[in-house]
Amino acid sequence: MKERLQKVTSWLQEEKHPAAFIHSTENVFYLTGFFTDPHERLMGLFVFQEAAPLFVCPAMEVSQARDAGWDGDVVGYEDHENPWELIEAALQTRELPEIGTVAVEKELLSYARAEELLKLYPTATLVAAEESLNELRLVKEPKEVEILKHAAALADYGVQVGIEALKEGVTEMDVLAKIEYELKRKGIREMSFSTMVLFGEKTGQPHGNPGLRTLKKGDFVLFDLGVVYEGYCSDITRTVVFGSANEQQKEIYNTVLKAQLAALDASKPGTRIGDLDLVARDIITEAGYGDKFPHRLGHGLGISVHEYPSMSKNNDNLLKEGMAYTIEPGIYDAEIGGVRIEDDVIITKDGHETLTKFPKELQIIQ
Amino acid sequence: MKERLQKVTSWLQEEKHPAAFIHSTENVFYLTGFFTDPHERLMGLFVFQEAAPLFVCPAMEVSQARDAGWDGDVVGYEDHENPWELIEAALQTRELPEIGTVAVEKELLSYARAEELLKLYPTATLVAAEESLNELRLVKEPKEVEILKHAAALADYGVQVGIEALKEGVTEMDVLAKIEYELKRKGIREMSFSTMVLFGEKTGQPHGNPGLRTLKKGDFVLFDLGVVYEGYCSDITRTVVFGSANEQQKEIYNTVLKAQLAALDASKPGTRIGDLDLVARDIITEAGYGDKFPHRLGHGLGISVHEYPSMSKNNDNLLKEGMAYTIEPGIYDAEIGGVRIEDDVIITKDGHETLTKFPKELQIIQ
Repeated sequence: MKERLQKVTSWLQEEKHPAAFIHSTENVFYLTGFFTDPHERLMGLFVFQEAAPLFVCPAMEVSQARDAGWDGDVVGYEDHENPWELIEAALQTRELPEIGTVAVEKELLSYARAEELLKLYPTATLVAAEESLNELRLVKEPKEVEILKHAAALADYGVQVGIEALKEGVTEMDVLAKIEYELKRKGIREMSFSTMVLFGEKTGQPHGNPGLRTLKKGDFVLFDLGVVYEGYCSDITRTVVFGSANEQQKEIYNTVLKAQLAALDASKPGTRIGDLDLVARDIITEAGYGDKFPHRLGHGLGISVHEYPSMSKNNDNLLKEGMAYTIEPGIYDAEIGGVRIEDDVIITKDGHETLTKFPKELQIIQ
Repeated sequence: MKERLQKVTSWLQEEKHPAAFIHSTENVFYLTGFFTDPHERLMGLFVFQEAAPLFVCPAMEVSQARDAGWDGDVVGYEDHENPWELIEAALQTRELPEIGTVAVEKELLSYARAEELLKLYPTATLVAAEESLNELRLVKEPKEVEILKHAAALADYGVQVGIEALKEGVTEMDVLAKIEYELKRKGIREMSFSTMVLFGEKTGQPHGNPGLRTLKKGDFVLFDLGVVYEGYCSDITRTVVFGSANEQQKEIYNTVLKAQLAALDASKPGTRIGDLDLVARDIITEAGYGDKFPHRLGHGLGISVHEYPSMSKNNDNLLKEGMAYTIEPGIYDAEIGGVRIEDDVIITKDGHETLTKFPKELQIIQ
C-alpha cells in the first residue's frame, strides 16, 4: 500500500497538484487495503504532495480500516457530526502550498461533495484523477494475480454448475439461480456483475436478460458470469449446445473459438493492445460474420470488472507484464443465436497465462 | 406520469427555478415510467417551467423508453456522439427565461456532469432538487400500493423458504443461497438489498455479515430480506429460535413484538411520525433494553428501499394516507443475540394495512 500511495504522491508532484481527494470504494481499497461501501456516508482519502495522507470514514468503521492495514491519520465521525468540519480541523495541521488544483474522481464525486471540498479550498480548481488512478491499477502485483486466479477458478466452477443443471424444460432463471446458489454456498457474497444465462435465440443479443425462457433441444446456451473474491473480479463466458448442434451452429462456434485462440496467442509483452482485437476480428470477418461482432474484444479486469486496459482496436498501448484482461469475441445472429467465449488472462514475463480454465472445445450437452 | 411531471413543473414555478435536470434511475422511473440503469452512459430528464420536457438516453434505449410510455421529446445518442452537443441543439428550440438556477440531484450528480450542465447554462447556480422529489414520491398511488403488496408477498415467501431450510449444521450462507435461489426461480432478478441470514450471537449486531457460521440448537435466527418487483422494494425481518428458547430469549422476543405491535397500532393518518418511534422505544426502554435499540424505528419504502419518510423520533411530520414505510424495532445483545421484527405498512384512509403477513408470534423451529 505504501508504494501505491507513493506513486500517487509522485504523480501529484509531477502534475503540480498539491492535493487529491479519492473516494471511490475501488481506489480507496487499492490505496488503503480497506474495502467498504459506506453508501451515503462520506469516506475518502486525502493525499498530498508534501503532507501526510488523511483517511476519513464513519467512526464505526475506523477499527476495520486499522485491521485492514491503514496506519496513517484518520478522521472518524459520528452520524451527528459534520465530517467536513472535522476534516477542516485536521487539515490545519498540514502546511500546504497555495492550493491551485485538487485532483478528484470527477466522474464519481457528487456535486454536493465537490461544493464541500471547494469550501475547504476556495481558490482551487478540481481536476480529474481517474486516468492516473486507472493507470496505477493497470499492472497487477503478484499478490493480486493470486487473488485473480482464485476468482477465475470460482467462475469456472459456476459454469460447471450451470452445465450440470441443464435439462429440457428448465428456465434460464432456474439455471442462473442454481449457479449463484452453489457459489454462495462456497461463501461468495457478491457476483462481479448480473449473471447471464441465455437459451436459444436469446443468445443472439450480446446483453440479453435471463428470464423464463425454457430449454429446448438444439438451443445454444450462453453463460456469462463472475465472482468477487477478496475484492477482485472474475468474468467468464462459455457457450454450449443442448441436445444436438447443426452445421451453422458448429461453424459459428468454431469461428469464435479460432478468433479467441488467435487473440490469446498474440497475448504477450510488447504486442500493441489494439492488434489483439484486430487479430480476432479479422478471423471473424473472413468467415463472413464481421457485422455480427459488434463489441470490442475485451476489457481490463481487477478490482473493477471493467477497468484498464480497454481491448479495443484503436488502443495503441503495448501489453506489459502484469496486465490482466478478458478476451471475449462473439458472433450474434438474431435467429440462430449467438456464441461468445471469454477467458481471463494475465500477461507474464514472456507470454500469458489463462486464468479461467474451463474447456473450450464445442460441448454438446445431452 | 403526466400528473407527476406536472407536479415538478409546479414546484419549479413556485421556487422560480426555470429548469431541472433529473438523472437518477429512481426519479427518472418515477417521472417517465422507464426503468433503466445506463451505468456510465448519460441519461436524464430536463423539465422546465415553461417549455416541454426533454428526455436524454442512449440511442439503443429510445424504443424501450417509448414502450415504457414516454411520449415526449427524446434525444438519443450513439456511443461515438457527444450527448451534450445534441442536448444543446435540442435546447435551442426551447425559449427559456434567464436561467438563474437549475435544480439537480446534487448528492448524485457527478462533478463532471455538473460541469457539462454549467456549460449549457453558464450563469446558472445548481440547486438541490432531492428534497422535493422525495416529497413527491412520499404518498403512493393505488397502482403503486398494488405493486408494493406483490413485493411484500414475495418477501414473506423468502422468509418461509429460509425457515424451511433450517437444520442443525447448515451455514448462514446455505440458507441465504436457498432463499435467493427460490426467489430467482420465481423470476426475481434483484433483491432490494443484500440478504441477511444470521445465527446465534451474530444476530446481536444490527448489521452483521452472513458467513459460514453453522446453526446450533438454541440459536436465534434472523432473516432480513426483500425483493425488487416491477421497480418497487419490499423489506421484511423475522427472527425465530432453533431448537428451544430460553427465558431471556422469550423475554427479548416478546418485548420487541409488543413494541412492534404498538407502533403498528399507532399507524394512522394524522399521527406524528416521530411518535411511532417513541411508542415502540418506550416499551423497550421500560423493559430495560433501551440502550439495546440503537437505530430508528424504520424508513419509507417504494422505488428505493430507503426513502421518505424517515421513521425517527424527531420527525415532526404527520402520517398521511398513501405513505409506505417499515416498522422494525430491535433489541441486540452481544451474547444472547438479537431480535428484530419488521413489517411493511401502508397508511389507509382511516388506519393502516400491513403488507408483509408472515406470522409474528415466537416460532421455535425443530
